[in-house]
Amino acid sequence: MSTQNPVFIPGPTNIPEDLRRAMDYPSIDHRSPAFRDMLLPALAGVKRVLRTTAGEAVIFPASGTGAWEAAITNTLSPGDRVLAARHGMFSARWIDLCRRHGLDVEVIDEAWGLPAPADRFAAALAADTGHRIRAVLVTHNETATGVRSDVAAVRRALDAAGHPALLFVDGVSSIASMDFRMDDWGVDVAITGSQKGFMLATGLAICGLSPKALAAAETAACPRGFFDFRDMLNANAGGGFPYTPPVNLIRALTRSVALLEAEGLEAVFARHHRIAEGVRAAVRAWGLRLCAARPGTESDTVSAILTPAGFDATRIVTHAASRYGVAFGVGLGEVAGKVFRIGHLGSMTDVMALAGLAAAEMVMADLGLPVRPGSGVAAAQDHYRATARAA
Amino acid sequence: MSTQNPVFIPGPTNIPEDLRRAMDYPSIDHRSPAFRDMLLPALAGVKRVLRTTAGEAVIFPASGTGAWEAAITNTLSPGDRVLAARHGMFSARWIDLCRRHGLDVEVIDEAWGLPAPADRFAAALAADTGHRIRAVLVTHNETATGVRSDVAAVRRALDAAGHPALLFVDGVSSIASMDFRMDDWGVDVAITGSQKGFMLATGLAICGLSPKALAAAETAACPRGFFDFRDMLNANAGGGFPYTPPVNLIRALTRSVALLEAEGLEAVFARHHRIAEGVRAAVRAWGLRLCAARPGTESDTVSAILTPAGFDATRIVTHAASRYGVAFGVGLGEVAGKVFRIGHLGSMTDVMALAGLAAAEMVMADLGLPVRPGSGVAAAQDHYRATARAA
Amino acid sequence: MSTQNPVFIPGPTNIPEDLRRAMDYPSIDHRSPAFRDMLLPALAGVKRVLRTTAGEAVIFPASGTGAWEAAITNTLSPGDRVLAARHGMFSARWIDLCRRHGLDVEVIDEAWGLPAPADRFAAALAADTGHRIRAVLVTHNETATGVRSDVAAVRRALDAAGHPALLFVDGVSSIASMDFRMDDWGVDVAITGSQKGFMLATGLAICGLSPKALAAAETAACPRGFFDFRDMLNANAGGGFPYTPPVNLIRALTRSVALLEAEGLEAVFARHHRIAEGVRAAVRAWGLRLCAARPGTESDTVSAILTPAGFDATRIVTHAASRYGVAFGVGLGEVAGKVFRIGHLGSMTDVMALAGLAAAEMVMADLGLPVRPGSGVAAAQDHYRATARAA
Amino acid sequence: MSTQNPVFIPGPTNIPEDLRRAMDYPSIDHRSPAFRDMLLPALAGVKRVLRTTAGEAVIFPASGTGAWEAAITNTLSPGDRVLAARHGMFSARWIDLCRRHGLDVEVIDEAWGLPAPADRFAAALAADTGHRIRAVLVTHNETATGVRSDVAAVRRALDAAGHPALLFVDGVSSIASMDFRMDDWGVDVAITGSQKGFMLATGLAICGLSPKALAAAETAACPRGFFDFRDMLNANAGGGFPYTPPVNLIRALTRSVALLEAEGLEAVFARHHRIAEGVRAAVRAWGLRLCAARPGTESDTVSAILTPAGFDATRIVTHAASRYGVAFGVGLGEVAGKVFRIGHLGSMTDVMALAGLAAAEMVMADLGLPVRPGSGVAAAQDHYRATARAA
Repeated sequence: MSTQNPVFIPGPTNIPEDLRRAMDYPSIDHRSPAFRDMLLPALAGVKRVLRTTAGEAVIFPASGTGAWEAAITNTLSPGDRVLAARHGMFSARWIDLCRRHGLDVEVIDEAWGLPAPADRFAAALAADTGHRIRAVLVTHNETATGVRSDVAAVRRALDAAGHPALLFVDGVSSIASMDFRMDDWGVDVAITGSQKGFMLATGLAICGLSPKALAAAETAACPRGFFDFRDMLNANAGGGFPYTPPVNLIRALTRSVALLEAEGLEAVFARHHRIAEGVRAAVRAWGLRLCAARPGTESDTVSAILTPAGFDATRIVTHAASRYGVAFGVGLGEVAGKVFRIGHLGSMTDVMALAGLAAAEMVMADLGLPVRPGSGVAAAQDHYRATARAA
Repeated sequence: MSTQNPVFIPGPTNIPEDLRRAMDYPSIDHRSPAFRDMLLPALAGVKRVLRTTAGEAVIFPASGTGAWEAAITNTLSPGDRVLAARHGMFSARWIDLCRRHGLDVEVIDEAWGLPAPADRFAAALAADTGHRIRAVLVTHNETATGVRSDVAAVRRALDAAGHPALLFVDGVSSIASMDFRMDDWGVDVAITGSQKGFMLATGLAICGLSPKALAAAETAACPRGFFDFRDMLNANAGGGFPYTPPVNLIRALTRSVALLEAEGLEAVFARHHRIAEGVRAAVRAWGLRLCAARPGTESDTVSAILTPAGFDATRIVTHAASRYGVAFGVGLGEVAGKVFRIGHLGSMTDVMALAGLAAAEMVMADLGLPVRPGSGVAAAQDHYRATARAA
Repeated sequence: MSTQNPVFIPGPTNIPEDLRRAMDYPSIDHRSPAFRDMLLPALAGVKRVLRTTAGEAVIFPASGTGAWEAAITNTLSPGDRVLAARHGMFSARWIDLCRRHGLDVEVIDEAWGLPAPADRFAAALAADTGHRIRAVLVTHNETATGVRSDVAAVRRALDAAGHPALLFVDGVSSIASMDFRMDDWGVDVAITGSQKGFMLATGLAICGLSPKALAAAETAACPRGFFDFRDMLNANAGGGFPYTPPVNLIRALTRSVALLEAEGLEAVFARHHRIAEGVRAAVRAWGLRLCAARPGTESDTVSAILTPAGFDATRIVTHAASRYGVAFGVGLGEVAGKVFRIGHLGSMTDVMALAGLAAAEMVMADLGLPVRPGSGVAAAQDHYRATARAA
Repeated sequence: MSTQNPVFIPGPTNIPEDLRRAMDYPSIDHRSPAFRDMLLPALAGVKRVLRTTAGEAVIFPASGTGAWEAAITNTLSPGDRVLAARHGMFSARWIDLCRRHGLDVEVIDEAWGLPAPADRFAAALAADTGHRIRAVLVTHNETATGVRSDVAAVRRALDAAGHPALLFVDGVSSIASMDFRMDDWGVDVAITGSQKGFMLATGLAICGLSPKALAAAETAACPRGFFDFRDMLNANAGGGFPYTPPVNLIRALTRSVALLEAEGLEAVFARHHRIAEGVRAAVRAWGLRLCAARPGTESDTVSAILTPAGFDATRIVTHAASRYGVAFGVGLGEVAGKVFRIGHLGSMTDVMALAGLAAAEMVMADLGLPVRPGSGVAAAQDHYRATARAA
């Protein structure tokens, strides 16, 4: 497939020039002060992006799945009860991972397309008067369905119940692209990766850890080694790593944070919202609906678009790739074949989004869907024109 | 300005990944066989792209303007008469350059927007029974107006008149993107640069030289040093250069030719024609006209679009850059303020072109022109869908 | 620290130009055939480098420590007995990791500077008539001491005892630089990373798996998720990954194998041996000894050099970095302060090695050690001259 | 040839990472303010490096030879007399170039290995009471012989004679590596390229122009077009270029100046002097002599080393390349076969220089010259140790 067109998958994202360069660097001695001078700013930068001053940040050479594993194995013990909603592929996978590590998951099943139900979390927590639930898992942005959940509401549910459970949040496809407030929301472990909002290659599992999570790590009995928070924090304290670090990605992470902060985190979020609104206008113009079924819960980083019943949505992705050299995301799990996804996170402009919409229109028309080419583009253009500022 | 969006200027073009890499290389010894092994394939590749087997290729570290100067100073003597059409900024500049070097230019003025008039060339050549005219200059693709001239027709005019003048062709913005046939058309010096169809950075002035041009170099009296064909050919024969060569660009030129030949030159031309046809469909949908006034002479590498009388077309370029981070080309010389230009040469896809058209529509609508957003995109989409093949 | 000088640490290694480029690539859709076309050749290439046809290769986004963890958690159950030698920092750490995962490690302590004692392995295995030992761990190349162990001898010990235990080999700093024969030696899990012999950035944990190891994965009860072989193999079978893959490193891994195979694996090993022999000649000329105490067990990828008693060897590393911008490796664990290490694996030439030796001489002389500048260089030059072939 | 080892040619030099990156950049619109914002700092930076506040800087897309041509064609008229010393390949070539452009060159022949003779310049200028000499040409650093000339002394000769001739200085291999003072020395045109002290790829011809040179450009009658100062200065004044500029090199030139100024120009000169002194110590230890015959005139950027009579010095360069993958410079012109050259300008460290010396020793010993391996390295090490500061 051509690398000339941008990708419209919900991560890995298009990588800015500056970050391409920052990752492409000769080997250095990771036991020297030169590495410390890369690591410490990266950790500090991650904390600022996560909006935590109380907590710590750790970075493992892994993907987001590794961060899920790190969160649970460092803070919990086999048999511990965990409360989690299952309403998309990624929330489902995290639950599966918990079970593999011997946790007892109390699952709240919700329709794919709806957010994690804060009211049902509240009920379950209130009912758990013995505080058997040790941790609550929330997927902030379900990448499979393009749905944003209300983390603050889950925090309020915990607080209302006076419940001491830890709050773990998968922010893989939201952090650094959508509003995320670790301290304000009382998140105990915040989880993300390098290849989404940070706009880097895949390879860093990033966790924010509250003091409470750090305390839990002292007693947690799940076996862990590679992902052990304590080893990592001990080594980081001396400017080092417990094993060979992914130097280039860590170095580039500091540069990524610098790019985000130069634009301003609020401006980054606003840019993603603006681009997403344009995409949503296009979807309406096409006469289609988002998988995100409840107004106000639509993701600003990925739009999962329902195709008409009987149509295999995966054909859109395949045809877009083979005929126009454009990458969209397929539907996963329960919505496989029912949705295709347009990723619009990371390094994305309105003009790039219009290219994606134009391509999607051609593909849908080619495949016989009743979508008029130009219609979605026009709707998005209207939005972008109305909201544009100086570049 | 953002580097996320592609550029839509008529060169330098968007540079493919592979060529970015090929240019980014450590220093080597340019007096070693390693350089010879870069130079000789580059020269051979240029000859294939120029479609010459009879001639030679030379490459100078300069821009296309340097190639203009090389062509005339190596083959002509002060006071020599040259016949040239002036119908755009670049043909006008070449004439000016000739005069600076003491040549006597017989100018055929033609309207900007029309091609070089082969019939008036024919008349001038027929009238020149004494063969005072030593060279005929043709700008194959006037980058300022987006007009293609008929080089073969000028060759026929020379042949019909039995005229021995040399034929020089500026193919800067056509070669490697549009059909060009040095041997078939009897071109004596073909001129281009690295930053257009070859998709590299600016820095190489490339000339194809017929045996007749080489013979002329033996007697030409214009002073020259840096651009001397003889020194260059002598050095090249031994695999070297008469001075420090631009190694990286020469190395990358071979890779550029490999990309062109992997796609197939005819396929490259067809791709540019297809993309250009989509752009032209958009222009019609906008209710606008090209500067190229005669059907069949439209350039496949750049479209110069006339804006309504009284409107300053330069505002489109300025607004596109400042509001949407997109680069179009301004009008130059006589058409300054009257046209804006969309470059679609080099590394360009249909989807990238749609992004440019969508941006242009937003800009024109923002500036109050009666262009309906989405209209041009839709017209181009229709063309692209109808002509798409597997990517 | 300057990035102009090569690094002389035992990994990450100096990265060849071609691999720098191969890692620096735009994002692609990892669910598309384009990724499959990167993954499958990478896996096939790893198998060829490991010299296994019977086994499989898996690649995780992690470091070599992750591969250690993957090896044991996929094949063993809590409480399982493991036999391992402890004779350096990395063998010690692997033992520690086993214990964290609930394994019962029978440790054979050997002096740091000696190889894993095959005879004591043989005795322990012969004594284990009940076959309680489920796995034997061997560190092929102890990076901390620069000592190579005899894996084939451990295999012979297993076979002689008729013992069914699995054989795991840490080849992190040997594979792709020194002779390694997975099938011939009956290795069940071979472990390495991307940043050593493969000459890439850190980020890939690479395992070769024998059919016996794969069978063990079906019954192993250690919890695992991120590093689960079965999920990985299932996903790989379809050309995919169980989570977001580190696309760029996987893409570059194929290119790395191509470089190794273009030179020829035997030639790569011979090159490292030749360079190492030169380093060892220098050490003798300096009047110093290697940590590797037994002739024939010296590593060809890293030389750990003992400094005189009472001298803090770490000062060499610090001084080399601060005064000459050159990175050597510090001593670790029991040999901290007693040795400094010169890494000479990966992308290394004789001339680069001479630069490192010259720097080491200056440093040692600066610090008052009785080393005559030029003496080691001269000894190495003699060896390199005597063994040089056309570059 | 390997790209792992540094090059030891007197340019193009080893390119720092930062400058590799700065040159590798996507295309931008060179008619936009983005280009102006690259160009103006580059020009300002060049002026600071040239140490001129009175003059202007211009940059052409060409090599240093183009700058030679630009200097003479912009300021002189056919038939004008020029005074020049010929004492090496590059001074000889510049004289040849003058003659091709119709100038009347009064040549002062000096032995290759000696500097331009200021006393003979003084005599010729004093004798030229009619002021027929319009320009004096000095090669500050003869790259072919490794000899530095005394520009200030030539300026004094002009002043002593009250002679109004222009002073042109070829500083191609000195500027930005050795002390150069355009205003202090009254240089009218200073000439260099991008690939030497500026550590970039070849492709920029850089000239500093005094007000007197600018005035001369108003009346000079040599034909010129591509290299016309007036067009360039006019375009630059508006932030533009008279034709397509080499954007990437111009952008990187600003970064190059930033690197030089971060180190400090005086510190850069001191570094080159220190490295060169080490090389010269090695040459003495080898029992060889430099081509630079007069003490105090040795170049700090390149050492041309005389080999014993009867020995073909070119064999050293060929053997170094083929056996050790190391590039040295061959002898040129009158000293072809008599010298080989070690370039040590641009991005070079003491440790890199030691690698080059070690390689040269192996080569010379291989070829039967009475050079003891290690001897030159040891001598250079002594110098580097004695003069080292914190890296």
